[in-house]
Amino acid sequence: MTHLLESIKSSKDIKVLTKQQLHLLADEIREEVINTVSSNGGHLGPNLGVTELAIALHYVFDSPKDKIIWDVGHQSYPHKLLTGRKTQFKSLRKHGGISGYPKIAESEHDAFGTGHSSTSISAALGMAIARDLKKENHNIIAVIGDGALTGGMSFEALNQAGHLQKNLIIILNDNQMSISENVGALSSYLSNIVKNPKYSEIRNTVRDAIMKLPGIGEKAADTVGHMEDLLRSMSKSGMFFKALGLKYFGPIDGHDLEGMIKALRNIKTIDGPLLLHVVTKKGKGYDHAEQNKEKYHGVSPFNISSGENLSKSTVMSYTGAFTRAMIKLAEQDKRIVGLTAAMPKGTGLDAFGKQFPERFFDVGIAEQHCVTLAAGLAKSGMKPVAAIYSTFLQRGYDQVIHDVCVQNLDVTFCLDRAGIVGEDGPTQHGVFDLSFLSAVPNMVVMAPKDENELGHMLKTAIDHRGPASLRYPRGSGIGVAIQNPYHSIEIGTSELVQKGSDVSLIGIGSCVPTIESAAKLLESRNINAEIINARFMKPLDERAIIKSIKKTGRVVTVEENVIQGGFGSAVSQLLIDKGINADIKCIGVPDSFVEQGPASMLRKRIGLNPENIAQSAQQLVK
Amino acid sequence: MTHLLESIKSSKDIKVLTKQQLHLLADEIREEVINTVSSNGGHLGPNLGVTELAIALHYVFDSPKDKIIWDVGHQSYPHKLLTGRKTQFKSLRKHGGISGYPKIAESEHDAFGTGHSSTSISAALGMAIARDLKKENHNIIAVIGDGALTGGMSFEALNQAGHLQKNLIIILNDNQMSISENVGALSSYLSNIVKNPKYSEIRNTVRDAIMKLPGIGEKAADTVGHMEDLLRSMSKSGMFFKALGLKYFGPIDGHDLEGMIKALRNIKTIDGPLLLHVVTKKGKGYDHAEQNKEKYHGVSPFNISSGENLSKSTVMSYTGAFTRAMIKLAEQDKRIVGLTAAMPKGTGLDAFGKQFPERFFDVGIAEQHCVTLAAGLAKSGMKPVAAIYSTFLQRGYDQVIHDVCVQNLDVTFCLDRAGIVGEDGPTQHGVFDLSFLSAVPNMVVMAPKDENELGHMLKTAIDHRGPASLRYPRGSGIGVAIQNPYHSIEIGTSELVQKGSDVSLIGIGSCVPTIESAAKLLESRNINAEIINARFMKPLDERAIIKSIKKTGRVVTVEENVIQGGFGSAVSQLLIDKGINADIKCIGVPDSFVEQGPASMLRKRIGLNPENIAQSAQQLVK
Repeated sequence: MTHLLESIKSSKDIKVLTKQQLHLLADEIREEVINTVSSNGGHLGPNLGVTELAIALHYVFDSPKDKIIWDVGHQSYPHKLLTGRKTQFKSLRKHGGISGYPKIAESEHDAFGTGHSSTSISAALGMAIARDLKKENHNIIAVIGDGALTGGMSFEALNQAGHLQKNLIIILNDNQMSISENVGALSSYLSNIVKNPKYSEIRNTVRDAIMKLPGIGEKAADTVGHMEDLLRSMSKSGMFFKALGLKYFGPIDGHDLEGMIKALRNIKTIDGPLLLHVVTKKGKGYDHAEQNKEKYHGVSPFNISSGENLSKSTVMSYTGAFTRAMIKLAEQDKRIVGLTAAMPKGTGLDAFGKQFPERFFDVGIAEQHCVTLAAGLAKSGMKPVAAIYSTFLQRGYDQVIHDVCVQNLDVTFCLDRAGIVGEDGPTQHGVFDLSFLSAVPNMVVMAPKDENELGHMLKTAIDHRGPASLRYPRGSGIGVAIQNPYHSIEIGTSELVQKGSDVSLIGIGSCVPTIESAAKLLESRNINAEIINARFMKPLDERAIIKSIKKTGRVVTVEENVIQGGFGSAVSQLLIDKGINADIKCIGVPDSFVEQGPASMLRKRIGLNPENIAQSAQQLVK
Repeated sequence: MTHLLESIKSSKDIKVLTKQQLHLLADEIREEVINTVSSNGGHLGPNLGVTELAIALHYVFDSPKDKIIWDVGHQSYPHKLLTGRKTQFKSLRKHGGISGYPKIAESEHDAFGTGHSSTSISAALGMAIARDLKKENHNIIAVIGDGALTGGMSFEALNQAGHLQKNLIIILNDNQMSISENVGALSSYLSNIVKNPKYSEIRNTVRDAIMKLPGIGEKAADTVGHMEDLLRSMSKSGMFFKALGLKYFGPIDGHDLEGMIKALRNIKTIDGPLLLHVVTKKGKGYDHAEQNKEKYHGVSPFNISSGENLSKSTVMSYTGAFTRAMIKLAEQDKRIVGLTAAMPKGTGLDAFGKQFPERFFDVGIAEQHCVTLAAGLAKSGMKPVAAIYSTFLQRGYDQVIHDVCVQNLDVTFCLDRAGIVGEDGPTQHGVFDLSFLSAVPNMVVMAPKDENELGHMLKTAIDHRGPASLRYPRGSGIGVAIQNPYHSIEIGTSELVQKGSDVSLIGIGSCVPTIESAAKLLESRNINAEIINARFMKPLDERAIIKSIKKTGRVVTVEENVIQGGFGSAVSQLLIDKGINADIKCIGVPDSFVEQGPASMLRKRIGLNPENIAQSAQQLVK
């Protein structure tokens, strides 16, 4: 069945196909995507939705001469299959395999690496400027979803693109979804366009109506009313983009291959920045995914015929523990509101939103706005909890400093997916937050050692008057029971997990259980380790940490964060400030981007495993 | 002359004034602003431009019950004068005095602290949500410039405001300028609205034209043409905002007090989110400022009648040294392009832009887009130099990580205003960049010790294949000659400034001259200090630093950055990694926000002065 796909190495091989073969190609791509994702996990719905679009783009344009930039990038699988990566595709998202996102090191057809949202128009505009300065001649195409379009930097880029008037093609892939259903006024606006007849049709109707007016004098008033309605529709069609200096075309059906090829051929000849509005259906061609778009956006390995997830963990996830705590705490304090930036399900706030719809806000893909919205809520006496993945909070850093911390406002940040996230790779690991947050005055920086402590830390953060954050990893907790009721932990207090005399092992967050395993290894080697669960990176529990290190004279710090500016560096600074001499070893993420692969394997590779921690401690003791 | 102003403590006192008195009040405010700014320095043009707007707002609304949020905030002087701060106003921007920005700790009338751009709508929306949840009843008004509106987070906030449909008033203060002339498609769009007759007038004209049509049958075709023009104008008027779900009103004259009062009274009664488009003139009422809007945006103390700057430094500024180097290097390498986010003059790129207009890009207030635009340029073989103030690069942090460093692209970041900036206070100091940049793999982090080294470092960064940054302070250099030609410094090499044996003083950037003064003090106290100009925070010159510390056994690190994750922490980590025992003291910005005041005074207060450095070294030696 996969004869066609195997013969395709680049655009050239697609251009010679017949109409019928193109449709077969679409079927083959879908089959390949469903098969591979069902076994490797990955993004399903987005890729099924853009299959025809990817074929049409490669049919009309000439990659790699023409540059195609896939915003967010989790919909680039068909593109990868169409550019010579069919044989490696089985390694999708595996360590050393094909990335789940465009990656410039992987193929010359991946014009720009993506992973976070809303970057494509900026990158494309940069390439368009470079092309013109170098007097080259090729097309640059940014493919961006309607969800990604709501990210502020898309707008910043559109604003300059409309100003510079360089040749630039923006394909708006409108599926009315990013991961969850899209929110925001722009989304309603686009949906109105799609529901209305086409702009050109309306214009013709209006013109006809006016031309006929003199002959129907007595009905003029009615006609005016009718015309005004029509003109209102007309003026809406794409006016948003026209106001920004872009030519607007569409909407067209994103699953009509011939129609799209025709449209792309036409717009290719048009100068200046333009936007082609393409309507697609997420999950197209796989029933389960069409019916449950959010569930099949990104998936773990699943059974193709039933659609069922193959690996069902019975242990509560960190995300689940957060949801539970949010709901319990919100029942007791009506000032608590929950904020997400387009990740209601991923952050676990969806269930909170169902119970407290009036206190739940999905701001769209808009982390900057999310943080300052939280600041505004806090200034007015609410208790906002902003649940944002660690890697995405990077996008709200200035707002954390400028709007929350300078004003010392009472905002809680819950950073899910902190540390190594696994198969999604370097753009998605959350390994910088301890560093960038702890540099900011007034911010309390916490990490729970397990899913039980998470809830208590959430209460701690909410009770604390001022900015506070907690970070926790992707996936299952360690299987401990949740202690009731939630209680506040005294700010800046650690937990002495195990007394010892030879070496202090101090960990933060999910590294604490790893340290406990390391301590067991050490015990079997006759080394008696003291274990401290730091709980707080900021403020540090100076007294407890100093007491332990003075006793043992040796310390190993462990964190799932870069070492520079991280937890170990804070402990080192403490020792320096207090003039305490001790042998110290800091274990964390080294100074290079962590690749994709199973999280446990990646942790082992960078030394975040019990054996390496034990060995480091042994070396200090020797 | 200042009788009226002295009697005004809040909105109440303004509401009782006659029309004539309101005009007198505007005159008094302008006089007070010009007098104070001419002696203290500060923002002039923006405040003169919003004088009538501030009066009208306080006349119609009831602060502090109604919340007025001034975006960017440097135009809040009239608001401060109208809310009981007349007597303290002479202390504007002085240490312990009135802030140059809204500050919640300063007055209950300052509803939200600002300083960076484009935050007001997010904060206002947060307050509107809180108000409705608490079932309170008051108005929330965000005043935002047309420049600030181009910042992506404004758009993110508009998108949600249009969706939620809460009562919220947005005043668009349109002066066609932010600091420099505004760029971007939205700016042209607004200017087209302003140039066109008012929306309502057009609508009436259109209606009239249509109603008359049956009687002028033979001219129908012409009329249709005429109508289409009119309708095109009509459909443009505010459609951008309407597409986002906002009601649009305006444009109105921002210096017509009575007109504005009427308009504000009207919109106060309207439900849902709305935008009132107010056209103002920056610098209004002071000839010099009206004629040279960019120069008088923010000023040092000046002579009121001549408009001349009182303090003219003859020493080249760091910014000037950057400009010189950019131009020289760009003459030799046509791949070099310069990018600024609405700061052509402040960053010194304006002169570069005059010489190389086709290689200069002002992206508007859009740091996120700026960084990724640079990444796109670099991916296409250019050598982009993004000149962004340290404090504003916080807003492009995710893009630095995700778009530049993950892909190891060849982008140079020039961070002006790094360290203590002085009178502008906590939102503007650039004291986090060494920490947040050095945490990111692949990024080279440099800081020049003087204005000469700056140019060589710029060449170093541009020559380096990969991301590199340099940071330098606001204001004058130290008066050294510029060495020709510019040469690359080997990556990761420090400079041994002075040999010594008792203690190693290691500084980065502008702290090096301070260390040299400290070494002289130490010499007079019979302590022989070794001085190292680190040049690179990342990669550190490990060999030279270790050699020096092994020799002296003591080290003091000095940086104008927070200590957490900063230069001293990197040196400490190095010693730990190498197992070197030494007495170490890290001097830098402590873990609290630095207030406003003269930079030299602030440095002394936080210990970044020669005497404190010398004392710290002495303590180690003892």
